[in-house]
Amino acid sequence: MSRKNVFYAQSGGVTSVINASACGVIETARKHRSSIGKVYAGRNGIIGALREDLIDTSKESATAIRGLASTPAGAFGSCRHKLKGLEESRAEYERLIAVFKAHNIGYFFYNGGGDSADTCLKVSQLSETMGYPLQAIHIPKTIDNDLPLTDCCPGFGSVAKYIAISTREAALDVASMCETSTKVFILEAMGRHAGWIAASAGLAAEQDGDAPHIILFPEIAFNREKFLARVRRTVKRHGYCVIVASEGAQYKDGTFLAESGHKDAFGHSQLGGLAPTLAQMVKDELGYKYHWAVADYLQRSARHIASRTDVEQAYGLGEAAVEMALQGKNAIMPCIVRGKGKRYRWSIGEAPLDQVANREKKMPRNYITRDGFGITEAAREYLAPLIVGEAYPEYRNGLPRYVRLKNIAVEKKLKATFKL
Amino acid sequence: MSRKNVFYAQSGGVTSVINASACGVIETARKHRSSIGKVYAGRNGIIGALREDLIDTSKESATAIRGLASTPAGAFGSCRHKLKGLEESRAEYERLIAVFKAHNIGYFFYNGGGDSADTCLKVSQLSETMGYPLQAIHIPKTIDNDLPLTDCCPGFGSVAKYIAISTREAALDVASMCETSTKVFILEAMGRHAGWIAASAGLAAEQDGDAPHIILFPEIAFNREKFLARVRRTVKRHGYCVIVASEGAQYKDGTFLAESGHKDAFGHSQLGGLAPTLAQMVKDELGYKYHWAVADYLQRSARHIASRTDVEQAYGLGEAAVEMALQGKNAIMPCIVRGKGKRYRWSIGEAPLDQVANREKKMPRNYITRDGFGITEAAREYLAPLIVGEAYPEYRNGLPRYVRLKNIAVEKKLKATFKL
Repeated sequence: MSRKNVFYAQSGGVTSVINASACGVIETARKHRSSIGKVYAGRNGIIGALREDLIDTSKESATAIRGLASTPAGAFGSCRHKLKGLEESRAEYERLIAVFKAHNIGYFFYNGGGDSADTCLKVSQLSETMGYPLQAIHIPKTIDNDLPLTDCCPGFGSVAKYIAISTREAALDVASMCETSTKVFILEAMGRHAGWIAASAGLAAEQDGDAPHIILFPEIAFNREKFLARVRRTVKRHGYCVIVASEGAQYKDGTFLAESGHKDAFGHSQLGGLAPTLAQMVKDELGYKYHWAVADYLQRSARHIASRTDVEQAYGLGEAAVEMALQGKNAIMPCIVRGKGKRYRWSIGEAPLDQVANREKKMPRNYITRDGFGITEAAREYLAPLIVGEAYPEYRNGLPRYVRLKNIAVEKKLKATFKL
Repeated sequence: MSRKNVFYAQSGGVTSVINASACGVIETARKHRSSIGKVYAGRNGIIGALREDLIDTSKESATAIRGLASTPAGAFGSCRHKLKGLEESRAEYERLIAVFKAHNIGYFFYNGGGDSADTCLKVSQLSETMGYPLQAIHIPKTIDNDLPLTDCCPGFGSVAKYIAISTREAALDVASMCETSTKVFILEAMGRHAGWIAASAGLAAEQDGDAPHIILFPEIAFNREKFLARVRRTVKRHGYCVIVASEGAQYKDGTFLAESGHKDAFGHSQLGGLAPTLAQMVKDELGYKYHWAVADYLQRSARHIASRTDVEQAYGLGEAAVEMALQGKNAIMPCIVRGKGKRYRWSIGEAPLDQVANREKKMPRNYITRDGFGITEAAREYLAPLIVGEAYPEYRNGLPRYVRLKNIAVEKKLKATFKL
């Protein structure tokens, strides 16, 4: 029992590159067979650990594991299951430790956003007090780009690229048609609390008058009159108007434009339907013919047009997590550090988990133009390098060849089952 | 005035490859400088001819024209302006002939769908009776794939590829999350009268249980109970259900689902499309958490993931139109002919325009499974080759480099203006 095994789990909404982090973890662990045993993955994330439903990744071929680097979504399954505070969720934390102990897990790699960073930290703390120390390392992932202490979050660059490309393409379409048909096009982008994704649409514009003409951010209170006036002015000037709206766009009082009344497991409102709401507003007040699109999951699973920079960073963070674990580190998150200087360079640093958890990084005000409808040069400088490079998957018969893992279960060792 | 000029116009909804047809026309015309003068394009389609607002494509560099082959949407502008019958729209037809005569146009290439085929035919007929004969050739284009006499329509293969890829990608996302979160995902695809686009999502499935689990076609009357039963069964069996719905999905009485006046939990009318309507139905009746996407213009402008087969066919049809014109042909449409045999091969044939106009090609019933929710092997054989091959545009700074033409106007020669 000298070589400890790894437990790896994917958490929360998946991305087009989270499997690249998994690939980084597994490939790197396989290079250190003298120090690391097997890599077990949680089936459907952390609930796989709670249920003692572990996947033995050692049953997968090197080719299959390599294929993860170009396969979107969560190959082992993810979940929305938030462990609360130690007191409230004590039984769950204790169950985790029991499962890890039973399977000789020494390394806990949790691949997720802010909530999982918090869980990861608590697992590390509790394991200590329970006398079964674990090295708990959080691998950042979120398309929302809202984690602190990392220059950017894996998953974001690829969504940004997708949104910027889609905006440029759809804008060409509208521009061709606007003389006699559609004059206003609205693309709804993800981003509940932070406008990073909608902001990235701004990269599509290169010259004055280029789309997008209006970006709506959650950070800027929506003002119906100013919005409609801007739409009218844009159509008069350019013949058409392309709007990219963050799903989190909200009125001054915090009401989402898209409020639908549903809540998810974390208590977050389920949003959707902003684009048709805005379209109706434009139609009613200005009478322009409109079209709208809601990209939804398409944007975060679009591995076919992932950013090469993003894929490399996602892989690099998975790799770094294992290397840091081997160096004896604990309760940290490897993060992206941007180099100084004009030319974009990045390296991997580390951030203490207690400073990551439960902090949201919104768009700085100086990234948004004074009128609240666009991005500034500073935002452009920040965003531009994150979408650089293509990393096309392999194709067969016109479709991307995404890997299918066997996902073979590890034999259970505990008698007790656990009710979620 | 011995060398006649060409008039080329784009008509109706644009596609990601209609500019490839323009490229085929212009490059081929440039190869025949001894027989063909200049290529003039209508600014915003046929209304450019009516307004005598012609674009001189000879002012564009060879590089710019080449760039058209990888640029989506209509580089000269398109329009939705239907010329009606000869009696009703006589003034418009006569104006067209007057403009063509003033600019020494001998060839009329009209790049559009069924309506433009009809206009093209009438222009040819009227020019004859007015003593200014024109060779009128229709270049097919429509993402709807509903033109008769051609095996497929340029623009369709690329949308089909986009929809199949997006379905595969989003399905991986939902599959990762379904244990604790979204169980039903609905993608709304274009196709008001024919289900070709939604059908192409079926190519994403390779094994039993693969998404899409349900396809809704305009050709099959929507049955709410059967649909909901199928959703429930799919979720029970596979854990999740991916639905691809044609925007033209309708009840037996011809009411579109998208216009069904569905109300949300608060009694508000559901805004917008079919996807949210279906999602609400699923939520109300089955209680599953859902997500939905409406790709709208994104699907038809997605040149970044165009089908190479489609791009080549679009180019080939533009090229063939010019060659046919040089052979003295008139009132025809070059079309795609599928070769016999297992291996997909295509060539270009010709179809008489009077047999093209005003006929819609729907999905044959034997392309849809008996239960009405999927595609058959016959459909798969038809669709599969159309999405084969990638034709990536060039990228700069992480974004596709789409060409911007100068679109310099030809000097007007007519004194009379024309009121549209």
